[in-house]
Amino acid sequence: MGEFLKVLNFREALQKIKSCFPGRQAEKVCLAEACNRILAAEIISPEHLPAFNRSTVDGYAVNAGDTFGSSEALPAYLNLAGEVKMGMEADFRLDSGQCCWIPTGGMLPEGADSVVMVEYTEKLGKDTVLVFRPVGPGENVMQKGEDVTEGEVILKPGKLLRPQDIGFLASLGILETDVFKPFSIGIISTGDEVIPIDRKPLTGQVRDVNSYSLAAAVQSLGSIPQVYPIVKDEFNALKQSVDSALGENDLVLLSGGSSVGIMDVTLDVLLSFSNAELLFHGLAVKPGKPTMAVRVGDKLVIGLPGHPVSALMMFYIICAPVLRFAPLLWVDVRVSVNIASQAGRDDFVPVQLVEEDGGQTARPLLGKSGLLNILSQADAYIHIPGEKQGLKAGEKVKAYIF
Amino acid sequence: MGEFLKVLNFREALQKIKSCFPGRQAEKVCLAEACNRILAAEIISPEHLPAFNRSTVDGYAVNAGDTFGSSEALPAYLNLAGEVKMGMEADFRLDSGQCCWIPTGGMLPEGADSVVMVEYTEKLGKDTVLVFRPVGPGENVMQKGEDVTEGEVILKPGKLLRPQDIGFLASLGILETDVFKPFSIGIISTGDEVIPIDRKPLTGQVRDVNSYSLAAAVQSLGSIPQVYPIVKDEFNALKQSVDSALGENDLVLLSGGSSVGIMDVTLDVLLSFSNAELLFHGLAVKPGKPTMAVRVGDKLVIGLPGHPVSALMMFYIICAPVLRFAPLLWVDVRVSVNIASQAGRDDFVPVQLVEEDGGQTARPLLGKSGLLNILSQADAYIHIPGEKQGLKAGEKVKAYIF
Repeated sequence: MGEFLKVLNFREALQKIKSCFPGRQAEKVCLAEACNRILAAEIISPEHLPAFNRSTVDGYAVNAGDTFGSSEALPAYLNLAGEVKMGMEADFRLDSGQCCWIPTGGMLPEGADSVVMVEYTEKLGKDTVLVFRPVGPGENVMQKGEDVTEGEVILKPGKLLRPQDIGFLASLGILETDVFKPFSIGIISTGDEVIPIDRKPLTGQVRDVNSYSLAAAVQSLGSIPQVYPIVKDEFNALKQSVDSALGENDLVLLSGGSSVGIMDVTLDVLLSFSNAELLFHGLAVKPGKPTMAVRVGDKLVIGLPGHPVSALMMFYIICAPVLRFAPLLWVDVRVSVNIASQAGRDDFVPVQLVEEDGGQTARPLLGKSGLLNILSQADAYIHIPGEKQGLKAGEKVKAYIF
Repeated sequence: MGEFLKVLNFREALQKIKSCFPGRQAEKVCLAEACNRILAAEIISPEHLPAFNRSTVDGYAVNAGDTFGSSEALPAYLNLAGEVKMGMEADFRLDSGQCCWIPTGGMLPEGADSVVMVEYTEKLGKDTVLVFRPVGPGENVMQKGEDVTEGEVILKPGKLLRPQDIGFLASLGILETDVFKPFSIGIISTGDEVIPIDRKPLTGQVRDVNSYSLAAAVQSLGSIPQVYPIVKDEFNALKQSVDSALGENDLVLLSGGSSVGIMDVTLDVLLSFSNAELLFHGLAVKPGKPTMAVRVGDKLVIGLPGHPVSALMMFYIICAPVLRFAPLLWVDVRVSVNIASQAGRDDFVPVQLVEEDGGQTARPLLGKSGLLNILSQADAYIHIPGEKQGLKAGEKVKAYIF
């Protein structure tokens, strides 16, 4: 297998996966079901927000010109022409020299262009208001359409809809939105030694951890996992299983033994499909050298290592960035101890985050077992790039939250 | 309403809510449905991991004593007694002076206590292995139960189950787990001016944004929202609605007009229940002064402001910390400009995070409208504590991710 020697780095692999990733379909959902979904089309405001010129203070709506030159010593005398009620249309018109009471949120009547705060006024008798301070046109007024203009693009495709976005759409009376359909992702564990988790492994057998951890990871990223039965390392059985999974899903994740013999069977099966193209086979990444990707028609099969920690880490490293729309969360941390790594290979190291004065420290979890209890104790992972030979204690890195 | 004057800070309010929060019920779910749920009971390992003493290298299993004193010049001569096959039981016993080939992951045979790496050995003929370096007892061996011991507590109640935790449980053959039942949370919007979102507001009317944004927020935190019809500011109607919602949920969120008159109706209704106890009424918090909480029997009603930004922010500030089990995510940032705030009041300000060299900067979103488009543009919020009068540009704060 000559291809096994052409080892890519993880960025190249990710790039290849991105370029072959199946397109996303859209679907309409009602607003109450749109939270945590990804917008598939831009949203255009059907209305002005606010819908009318609105006071931002309690006070008197005026024509600004009538207040020019007013002062404590020489107030402007305005004629009180009425009152705007909260939630009522201001259905009268202010003439020059008039004012009217207006509450915060009230609608400015025609003829008024500004509001004097009540603090700078005094009522004189029933009909007269003294204004002790001038206002400029537009002062203390929120203009119609100032927040959002009718026809304006307010949200763009690709946005993750959070509760406040749902509220924003509700405020505009938008009842349904176009969001991306979740991907359907087939998951197949392979290996003669892999047994269902409800069975007690005999020596040398391992429980099918990957079907559970990968399904959970797929689901956490908003895609829909479909788990297939465990397949033996045998050409026909594997071909049949991959064939069904490709027919029923957008993407298939295989995970299996990392020995060269078993990888060869997998690769032979994948390349035996009539429209198959090998994207890569082997990565300069720890953990996860034995990772491969094959495009089959407009679908994609990603072969992950069999080892549960490697399989899940490689899923996070080369699949999650394509499935995830929300940005990966990270925090700036300092590593607590020296961490060695081999130059020419990207290392991803699970860490615990420990709060210390002055920030957070990342404590690497380098168990000799490499079992999933290591990842279960981890809060995040750090990346040691291929050009480095490790990190020094105290060095600053980004920790990506699991 | 004398109570209106007893204004608490948000920490005191949160404390009161925590102390009266209904207890969580547990339920059993199968492992495939446990991701993103919260563990309700500790998990005890039913097995040793690994299940047998296992080699961590390729080499020869030996009795360490047989290698003592060996060197390049004076190798130990051991008798090759067999081979351990990967995934097979090591069903023979090594006697003193014997060794056997063992692959990484292979099971140590009885009589062997350590493994010499193949690099430090040489095979001589068919039956003899030269060992050029001594090993200590236990060297290159992972002991049975070293990762996890049978009977050990491996996960504690309150843990959020992530994909790796699901995988960890799968590796131990654990088929179902006790997780907390989601809370059921009733949501009632009140106010004469509030209309369903599919209707076009007349002047002074507002669409029922809170039913949507609060339901989405409740759902995002893993609880189950139940939205009730909009209720007018009228004692009997409100009492009837709160009564049903209390009967059907663990907790009720009311949101309504923030004027004193409307708050009084709400408070009268809540205190009219026979076993009601006022927890607080009015908070020294911006945005969200008109927030209240009343305990009714073993349930809780939280009255949020009517303004959509205030309602959602107050939900995040005093409800989310109790509903959420996962820690709130935050990043260290510097504020981009001076931000004024009033001493004696906790301010929560929505911000955009902007990547700059040397870290992230928080740019406050201080729209005059306070409409939800502000929160829709925000990535996070910052907290200006009551004892401060604001933040200076460049000052370091924590930004809590929405």
